[in-house]
Amino acid sequence: MDPTDDQVACFEAGIKFGSLYHQFAGTPVSPESADSLARAIEEAIENQPHCEEVQVSIREEALRAAIDAGDADYVEFTGEFADVDVVVEYEGVTVETAMRMDGDYPLMAIEDVRE
Amino acid sequence: MDPTDDQVACFEAGIKFGSLYHQFAGTPVSPESADSLARAIEEAIENQPHCEEVQVSIREEALRAAIDAGDADYVEFTGEFADVDVVVEYEGVTVETAMRMDGDYPLMAIEDVRE
Amino acid sequence: MDPTDDQVACFEAGIKFGSLYHQFAGTPVSPESADSLARAIEEAIENQPHCEEVQVSIREEALRAAIDAGDADYVEFTGEFADVDVVVEYEGVTVETAMRMDGDYPLMAIEDVRE
Amino acid sequence: MDPTDDQVACFEAGIKFGSLYHQFAGTPVSPESADSLARAIEEAIENQPHCEEVQVSIREEALRAAIDAGDADYVEFTGEFADVDVVVEYEGVTVETAMRMDGDYPLMAIEDVRE
Repeated sequence: MDPTDDQVACFEAGIKFGSLYHQFAGTPVSPESADSLARAIEEAIENQPHCEEVQVSIREEALRAAIDAGDADYVEFTGEFADVDVVVEYEGVTVETAMRMDGDYPLMAIEDVRE
Repeated sequence: MDPTDDQVACFEAGIKFGSLYHQFAGTPVSPESADSLARAIEEAIENQPHCEEVQVSIREEALRAAIDAGDADYVEFTGEFADVDVVVEYEGVTVETAMRMDGDYPLMAIEDVRE
Repeated sequence: MDPTDDQVACFEAGIKFGSLYHQFAGTPVSPESADSLARAIEEAIENQPHCEEVQVSIREEALRAAIDAGDADYVEFTGEFADVDVVVEYEGVTVETAMRMDGDYPLMAIEDVRE
Repeated sequence: MDPTDDQVACFEAGIKFGSLYHQFAGTPVSPESADSLARAIEEAIENQPHCEEVQVSIREEALRAAIDAGDADYVEFTGEFADVDVVVEYEGVTVETAMRMDGDYPLMAIEDVRE
């Protein structure tokens, strides 16, 4: 069957999450550069169609702990270092989604769908 | 409201498309290396949860035309050089999705949702 | 033979250019988000060892022209949209490098090596 | 000063390493998909100018250990999961370079420069 508007809205939200994760995973990041990376992720993904808002909150404690445990003074960006919220609107349907760590896995999930 | 199974299935399908596009966009590609890139994309994304199948079909004519028009003997991979199909299954819901060029834009769309 | 300090310095400079290009190529970018992307690239790559300075200057005219020519209000970031300068220092050797468009190819080159 | 041929050769070798690392870091990888990823990396980077050979050898033991330690049946590709060798030739200068783990850091180094 053809998709309904809420299905398309959820599909679009998924695109945003896959995009931001795989575009920016691997970026060298330190406490000093974390803010500019977070802003760039937000503004880059907000360019995509139907994307209302992206919020990237760096998990500074996890970032500092990873740097302390390693041999360099930066690490490669992965999901463990940020909480991310994305809001998509499509044909009157609003989808709120979030990425949070679930154990050691950065779980992306739909938090709310409303018309 | 909490998402329904079909909404989650569509969200998961979107994640796969965003992931594969932004992981592999920019990869140097030529007619000689197109096959290995296509296979790697398929097998990489099929690792992701709920992903049943990924098919990447290189658009060889577009690839050769772009190389002929440029100054190098390869180009950077973008959506203009591949048709992609992704099938996701989640809790009994099957979602078929595709990326096809729509003018100069690589449009990702849901083709079918069924239980 | 083992590499000399100036050879290592040039190798390190090359790493920075390859990294920044292939980390950020494909990022959605518009005139509104260009600044945050440029700052994030600079600060991310400056984390890497022996990297003294990275300067990313968005080629706004090229960016606006590409957006006007396309079907979306953003494009994917590639070398055609930025001039980049990178300075590396290694064991007293300073290497200045730059990426500039050469026809349609983003040419990365060493501009100066000095001890 | 203008760079010498050996300096340019080393710069080009660095570009290849930065490119391959930051293009492919973050790719979902499992023991089943490791071969196709390795081949794609090799053939993609060999497209780049002056690149004679790329060899990617997956560190299967490290890969399996990381998957056993995690919550998913794949991991994101990083330098810890591959040894990489790259040979560049430029104007009669051959540069052999390698990426090997040095503690927890994927160290990229020049192994040999010869004319």
